[in-house]
Amino acid sequence: MSAPRGLVALTRGDPSGIGPELALKAWAALHADATAPAFFIIAEADHLADVARRFGLNVPVEVADPAEALALFPRALPVIGLRGKVAGALGAPDTADAAATVASIEMAVELVHSGAADALVTNPIAKEVLQRAGFAHPGHTEFLGELAARFYGQKARPVMLLWSPTLAVVPATIHVPLAQVPRLITRELLIATGEIVNADFKRRFGLAAPRIVFSGLNPHAGEAGHMGREEIEIIAPAVAALREAGIDARGPYPADTLFHASAREKYDVAICMYHDQALIPIKTLAFDSAVNVTLGLPFVRTSPDHGTAFDIAAAGTADPASLIAALRLSAKLAKAQA
Amino acid sequence: MSAPRGLVALTRGDPSGIGPELALKAWAALHADATAPAFFIIAEADHLADVARRFGLNVPVEVADPAEALALFPRALPVIGLRGKVAGALGAPDTADAAATVASIEMAVELVHSGAADALVTNPIAKEVLQRAGFAHPGHTEFLGELAARFYGQKARPVMLLWSPTLAVVPATIHVPLAQVPRLITRELLIATGEIVNADFKRRFGLAAPRIVFSGLNPHAGEAGHMGREEIEIIAPAVAALREAGIDARGPYPADTLFHASAREKYDVAICMYHDQALIPIKTLAFDSAVNVTLGLPFVRTSPDHGTAFDIAAAGTADPASLIAALRLSAKLAKAQA
Repeated sequence: MSAPRGLVALTRGDPSGIGPELALKAWAALHADATAPAFFIIAEADHLADVARRFGLNVPVEVADPAEALALFPRALPVIGLRGKVAGALGAPDTADAAATVASIEMAVELVHSGAADALVTNPIAKEVLQRAGFAHPGHTEFLGELAARFYGQKARPVMLLWSPTLAVVPATIHVPLAQVPRLITRELLIATGEIVNADFKRRFGLAAPRIVFSGLNPHAGEAGHMGREEIEIIAPAVAALREAGIDARGPYPADTLFHASAREKYDVAICMYHDQALIPIKTLAFDSAVNVTLGLPFVRTSPDHGTAFDIAAAGTADPASLIAALRLSAKLAKAQA
Repeated sequence: MSAPRGLVALTRGDPSGIGPELALKAWAALHADATAPAFFIIAEADHLADVARRFGLNVPVEVADPAEALALFPRALPVIGLRGKVAGALGAPDTADAAATVASIEMAVELVHSGAADALVTNPIAKEVLQRAGFAHPGHTEFLGELAARFYGQKARPVMLLWSPTLAVVPATIHVPLAQVPRLITRELLIATGEIVNADFKRRFGLAAPRIVFSGLNPHAGEAGHMGREEIEIIAPAVAALREAGIDARGPYPADTLFHASAREKYDVAICMYHDQALIPIKTLAFDSAVNVTLGLPFVRTSPDHGTAFDIAAAGTADPASLIAALRLSAKLAKAQA
């Protein structure tokens, strides 16, 4: 399946969050635009119709088979129906919905693997809700690694990329306390991350020789060892090893001078040492339009760069910009790969 | 001394760095602008004249007494003369210049204390060069704390503020390896920092009730303790103590969502936990125009937000924007205080 506009499988995420609302709004924004990808959502059709009615969104919702989705998309949001009823209310999640939330993700990967869709986009889930229901993974990314193994028979090492038109960043460590970061930064981690970033920027972003920069861990990248030695002992050797492997890796550079406009022109993607070092600059520059892309998987997966937003889920005011950007980017990456 | 345009004492910084060139360029930009502050520089007049000649800068340099500087400024750069010759070449610093570099700073503080100037602006120094010559302080800021005690008889606790028209940030810890940050973040440090920031934003920036936000230390500000407990055990109690003291302190908030345009509207200054957390957003947003301000001193001190830049000091291409912003801001802060 590689229709001109592309077809994306969208998961419903937590049904009590803003995911269903965003899906409806994204359909409204994209269905009449032939340059935008089509998508279907794996969800309970009744729930979507309820959300549409509640927020006054004029979006026809129709249960369909994936094979019919592309033809249907211009006139209705195609829904691959999940059985059952949603238990949670908007803004009030219920662990009784967890099994269907997980099933939506599994089914989406299966449909991408079978060729019924070109790429996967995931709506936000709430880890606490899923974990209370027995979900054993720290988050989406790790679960997708397991699904890659299950469906593709491929051991995957997922790497999180935050992408926007002005900046692309990869945090080498992610959801760990800051105090643990220094001991988690190893040459092995940085080399593996650099290799995956390089491979996926070539294959999916279509760059012949991606320019990859590494930030330092310490202020001023350690200032020649005066403020920390991780740059000398770990990061610089990892960069050297990547260069020896023919990869255009550079650094480590001081993180504070790496993200202004003229600095950004000199590279395609920055590998940062920890969460805030990567997410501060991209959310400062591209708060509403950044997309989360999982590299290192055998399929294309993107997601909006925000959470379930339970606090505003009953208001109908959620902004679909990041989901729309995620849908557009996923189709583009899938096309480059095809 | 509080003339309408204000008079600023500028140190020469390392004579082999870009400081002298920037001072000449700043004079060229400001001397004919009656809304801009006047300034004098404490330096070797011959060296400044040499630098002007070398880079083709049409800036008359004239040795003067501080009392004559304001009247002289529209037609020449007033120089409070340091005796002796500069030993280093542009781009090649010499420890033989260290004593005069230090003397320039001491003299400038003395002149501000005596009322001969309204505020102090410092050109960049090279810590390594000074320390090889026996300078015992980690940097400018700590040395100025000592000079405050010497001249004003006041024990000072200097706090670094990075200021730009769009964002103001304070790193609670500064030039330390990242691995040491978690144990350096204490309630005492955060409360003292918050009190100094509050006092100086009232006195110098003229805000009746400065809105101060604190960032978290960990990703997502620890996510309710799931990714680190410093927010719960240290930062939130410090914020509570400041609020009890009547200060408009808030947080801790996740650092990655604290710096986009609509978030920035909600506060006047952000206190961050470490160097890169504070400096990444301000250098991303205001790379050329951020000013370093030292709070907690009995006098006003600002400096450009860059170093000696020895690598470009022989080229004549240095951008004076940050020094000019530092000069303008110092005069404004001194006026508010007067």
